[in-house]
Amino acid sequence: MSTAAPPPVIILVRPQLGQNIGRAARAMLNFGLTEMRLVAPRDGWPNPDAGPAASGAALVLERAQVFDTVADAIADCSLVFASTVRKRDIVTPVVGPEQMAAAIHSTEGRSAILFGPERSGLATEDAVLASHIVTVPINPEFGSLNLAQAVILLAYEWSRSAPLVQPTAFEVEPRAPQAELDGLIEHLDGYLSQVNYFNPPERIHATRNTIRTILTKPGWSSREVKAVRGMIRAIAQPRLRSS
Amino acid sequence: MSTAAPPPVIILVRPQLGQNIGRAARAMLNFGLTEMRLVAPRDGWPNPDAGPAASGAALVLERAQVFDTVADAIADCSLVFASTVRKRDIVTPVVGPEQMAAAIHSTEGRSAILFGPERSGLATEDAVLASHIVTVPINPEFGSLNLAQAVILLAYEWSRSAPLVQPTAFEVEPRAPQAELDGLIEHLDGYLSQVNYFNPPERIHATRNTIRTILTKPGWSSREVKAVRGMIRAIAQPRLRSS
Repeated sequence: MSTAAPPPVIILVRPQLGQNIGRAARAMLNFGLTEMRLVAPRDGWPNPDAGPAASGAALVLERAQVFDTVADAIADCSLVFASTVRKRDIVTPVVGPEQMAAAIHSTEGRSAILFGPERSGLATEDAVLASHIVTVPINPEFGSLNLAQAVILLAYEWSRSAPLVQPTAFEVEPRAPQAELDGLIEHLDGYLSQVNYFNPPERIHATRNTIRTILTKPGWSSREVKAVRGMIRAIAQPRLRSS
Repeated sequence: MSTAAPPPVIILVRPQLGQNIGRAARAMLNFGLTEMRLVAPRDGWPNPDAGPAASGAALVLERAQVFDTVADAIADCSLVFASTVRKRDIVTPVVGPEQMAAAIHSTEGRSAILFGPERSGLATEDAVLASHIVTVPINPEFGSLNLAQAVILLAYEWSRSAPLVQPTAFEVEPRAPQAELDGLIEHLDGYLSQVNYFNPPERIHATRNTIRTILTKPGWSSREVKAVRGMIRAIAQPRLRSS
């Protein structure tokens, strides 16, 4: 097992609505992030609106820590990203979500991502505390991510490049062994020969190749190959019986 | 310059709340997706709750098309993904968001992503219409994506790989449109019914789903669909002529 870097801390700076804090918690937990910090939440903490919006991510809210300032909230973090659009007035390097995730995974210390208040976004004086600005590349004519959406996209990006993410199996059932596929092709070929499908004879070779390509492409499992043979037999056999 | 594949159509199947339709529209437009289709929205369409929740993504809602069935909604699409967790009862291949995006970018035809109703998710009979299931790899102990979040994650994944459009040769020939595949399935179904293949009757539904999955999996081109229909006809028709 690799020694994975710790997951990033999600820091909401002066969040306004409890509901959005809850939604952010839910977004986090979907991708395995559990550490939330709140800097000066407008309506205090705890906030009764947060729980219902978290849809079961209560543990994130229960463990949330509250700080007075961003500086306090990031004191133990060695890599801090400010989630915001690029700010004209500061020269902090701007990275995309993917670069952010790679940096978090390869750092040894704690990392954090800052998100600003819903209405205004991160203030310049908070953004400058970060080592990097992280900006989600978005439709230039319609950039309208809400807080929970910004959180979920960055949490997803962290998770998708995490070493522990389980691989999704491209195929649920393994492909049938070649011999079974050959069996199906011969079976079909036999019926087709009987009905004089391979005509004219000089096309036989090309037609057989086409059939093989068509039946190889699916990557059918043993079960599926059997089902296809069953259907072919069902359609062909009544004729054989009646002839 | 490469000719970029068209962006995927986002199809909401039996969505319940207008608010969620609006949020999905907003999520889409953030990443440049503008084509929404609605299948049998519970509260009819237009829905007055959708507009405010769309936060400016009104054009997506205005252009939304409404269909009675999923089959109608995907009739012109050649690559269809069902956004859902893996279903035990079907064997449609499961891919991750990244594989989905790569496939959409490298196909020539139209592609679509299906999302189910908020409460229940996609029904099996709708999921089997898709060529692939797409599942966001999520915290196994807390998977709780809402509709707009599922939409935004897949829209983001499509968008993030958009600039790198490379002909990865996912498909040499484009997949046949769904309507042609449906034609093949009906054709085969007709022959199978005549030979009493669907027996016992209580298994008809499951058997039909299996057949659909088997024939959707290959991703056959129009040419290949035609060839398969030709073979089926060749095998079946002598019997019809002789009976």
